[in-house]
Amino acid sequence: FIHILDAEETEPYLLRLGATDDRTLPLYGIPFAVKDNIDLAGIPTTAACPAFAYTPDESATVVRRIIELGGIPVAKTNLDQFATGLNGTRSPYGVCRNSVLPDYPSGGSSSGSAVAVALGVASFALGTDTAGSGRIPAAYNNLVGLKATRGLISTHGVVPACRTLDCTTLLTASASQASMLFSLLARFDPADDYSRKNPQWNGSTAFGRIRPGFRFGVPQTLDFAGRSEDEALFAQAVARLETMGGLAVPIDLSPFLDAAKLLYEGPWIAERHLVVQDLLTRDPEAILPVIRAVLDAAPEYSAADMFSAVYRLQHIKAECDAVMNGLDCVLTPAMPRPVTLAELQEQPVAANSLLGVYTNFMNLLDYAAVAVPSAFIANGLPWGVTIFGRAFTDQYLLSIADAFQRTSGLPLVGGQTLEPAVTGRVATNDRARIVVCG
Amino acid sequence: FIHILDAEETEPYLLRLGATDDRTLPLYGIPFAVKDNIDLAGIPTTAACPAFAYTPDESATVVRRIIELGGIPVAKTNLDQFATGLNGTRSPYGVCRNSVLPDYPSGGSSSGSAVAVALGVASFALGTDTAGSGRIPAAYNNLVGLKATRGLISTHGVVPACRTLDCTTLLTASASQASMLFSLLARFDPADDYSRKNPQWNGSTAFGRIRPGFRFGVPQTLDFAGRSEDEALFAQAVARLETMGGLAVPIDLSPFLDAAKLLYEGPWIAERHLVVQDLLTRDPEAILPVIRAVLDAAPEYSAADMFSAVYRLQHIKAECDAVMNGLDCVLTPAMPRPVTLAELQEQPVAANSLLGVYTNFMNLLDYAAVAVPSAFIANGLPWGVTIFGRAFTDQYLLSIADAFQRTSGLPLVGGQTLEPAVTGRVATNDRARIVVCG
Repeated sequence: FIHILDAEETEPYLLRLGATDDRTLPLYGIPFAVKDNIDLAGIPTTAACPAFAYTPDESATVVRRIIELGGIPVAKTNLDQFATGLNGTRSPYGVCRNSVLPDYPSGGSSSGSAVAVALGVASFALGTDTAGSGRIPAAYNNLVGLKATRGLISTHGVVPACRTLDCTTLLTASASQASMLFSLLARFDPADDYSRKNPQWNGSTAFGRIRPGFRFGVPQTLDFAGRSEDEALFAQAVARLETMGGLAVPIDLSPFLDAAKLLYEGPWIAERHLVVQDLLTRDPEAILPVIRAVLDAAPEYSAADMFSAVYRLQHIKAECDAVMNGLDCVLTPAMPRPVTLAELQEQPVAANSLLGVYTNFMNLLDYAAVAVPSAFIANGLPWGVTIFGRAFTDQYLLSIADAFQRTSGLPLVGGQTLEPAVTGRVATNDRARIVVCG
Repeated sequence: FIHILDAEETEPYLLRLGATDDRTLPLYGIPFAVKDNIDLAGIPTTAACPAFAYTPDESATVVRRIIELGGIPVAKTNLDQFATGLNGTRSPYGVCRNSVLPDYPSGGSSSGSAVAVALGVASFALGTDTAGSGRIPAAYNNLVGLKATRGLISTHGVVPACRTLDCTTLLTASASQASMLFSLLARFDPADDYSRKNPQWNGSTAFGRIRPGFRFGVPQTLDFAGRSEDEALFAQAVARLETMGGLAVPIDLSPFLDAAKLLYEGPWIAERHLVVQDLLTRDPEAILPVIRAVLDAAPEYSAADMFSAVYRLQHIKAECDAVMNGLDCVLTPAMPRPVTLAELQEQPVAANSLLGVYTNFMNLLDYAAVAVPSAFIANGLPWGVTIFGRAFTDQYLLSIADAFQRTSGLPLVGGQTLEPAVTGRVATNDRARIVVCG
């Protein structure tokens, strides 16, 4: 944590609830944690950089809405500085350890948010995700991490990483909780230039039982960084989706991986640089050396480089969209394999990069993704997969994730297990239907 | 013209038609002209720069499709070099004069394409449009110019101006012809990375009679560059839409004009520069001085400048979208006032810029637009308006343009006049309905 709200700071939220006395509010009294690059009125926002800190007068749109719905903010959580990292160690506020095994990191950059939910301090937490920051810490801590379609959950009041790519994310114990929160929070925000309207077919009624025969892509070749245990766990996850009635379709993941390379080996670094350039000029020592190293490439890129990269991305996206055609979703491991704190200390950049192999491409390609717990490895560490699909299929992906969790029968954080089956309507990928049939 | 197909060059297309003997082809035997930045197999593509010329083996996707549908290419037409200009004088192949008054330019950059249709050499023509190049020459020559939603008509095989913004356009005598062609040519093209699927609600069935009570935006303040005649003609156009049953809604055009500034005063120039940078290095004299002057600003922009401009555009687009909310379309003059050839000679940049005031913002904002003839000024020069709306409302805009033409009773190029009313189904802006109601 960077800031735990004390009794005085929490009081107005409790009083507000007392005053409204409206116990029908959907989030009445539910404690939630806020990543410290998201504004909470009156509490400093640090982005894990004390020299950058400011105290906002207003909460971020998404935080304000949660409070209006009855939620109680309990803490501002630690993160990889400026949300640049996937491991949780890049913070002057301390290394964030894994909630289960202390030799492992929490994952990041939404490190504290994940741990807060995993340890029961909060019922859910807000994170952000530009390249995996909401999904990697979910996978490391037995949580669901929803990186919804860009623009559906407001980023107004969030410190940008890459403004064109940033998403506000949800960290929850279960996919059904994420679905409920998503339906409450996916609102057009006029204050957010990147806000998009959520179409009706992606509303709460789109969440339900999955239909048999859904087609999920499975990459033909995957890199588990040499670990056979991860490979076996992934095969188990594929088999589980088949048990659920899904049809595995082999796909070529290489265009997706090509997109990922653009993010850190191309001019998008200039976006991150824009956020901190004043501070970088004024007081470079205020920024962690590892973050400065990432940003160093930025000033070299020209607008022409940028356009070349944009064309390349558009070409890759056309290839990826062609792969996605006829698929309901794609299944990948959340990461090639978990890395340890020792490995991160030894190779802070390479070990971090390894974590992002299956997450980096998502935001650039404008896909929606859910990280969902799939197993525990032999040493007890949580192990997760990612289910992703086209933009505006969030509720459909969550339906698959929900069924996946119920079929796995794994304990959620806090110990609860889900009922094996959920009754109710069949979830449908309505977007495909509407696009095809008008 | 840059190249008129001789008998030998036209023969294969005629033979092909003879061979298929399929008189049911929708474009059977119809002659069409092709702007010389669009590939026609076996004929050089010059982009009005002889040093840039190459002879393509394959036709552009859109040209190939027209030929498959029975069309006969008759000429490659003159243009402002590299489609950079709105007047038709910037070409080593000669100044393109107006089809009605020789003291005026044709408008550009699709100059020869407009004149070819206006003079009856072709039944319709292909142009391109990045900042008005398909609409300005339409307005100058009593034509309809459709700049459809970006990505709906393939740009594969088109020399780029700004690849992220370019559109292939249609120049026709009437909006109903443009509607028919659009429905035939708006096809997803896997070879075009920027291709988008046309939703069913924007198909041919969306074209028809307009419904009463449609709301059209009218800018509260407009710049007619001091000419009261243009102002009166615009008032007449507003009155005509009201006669048609429309409701005029005053709007603030300033955010739209802010977007326009970004196009030439920002890093998008770097896109144009990318297209010709090799030639510019190898043989700068091969490029017209006025075009070189435009491109000179490009190397100064960095990727960070680019992102700043992208954020600014996104902010402006959010403002413009808010203005568009609840409107069916917006009406503007096609240009503040027509400029003469003498003015262009005296002030080649300023006079050209004046032409683009009401067209430059469209592609950046991802709107669809139709230039439609509205009147003749006292000296006999055609005078047009632009009707624009949100992406994927092309057929709806064409329905309004069609009714506008029928109500005006003006002679089309070639002398025909349209029946005052068209029977058939009522056109509806289905997009709005689907987005709202699912």
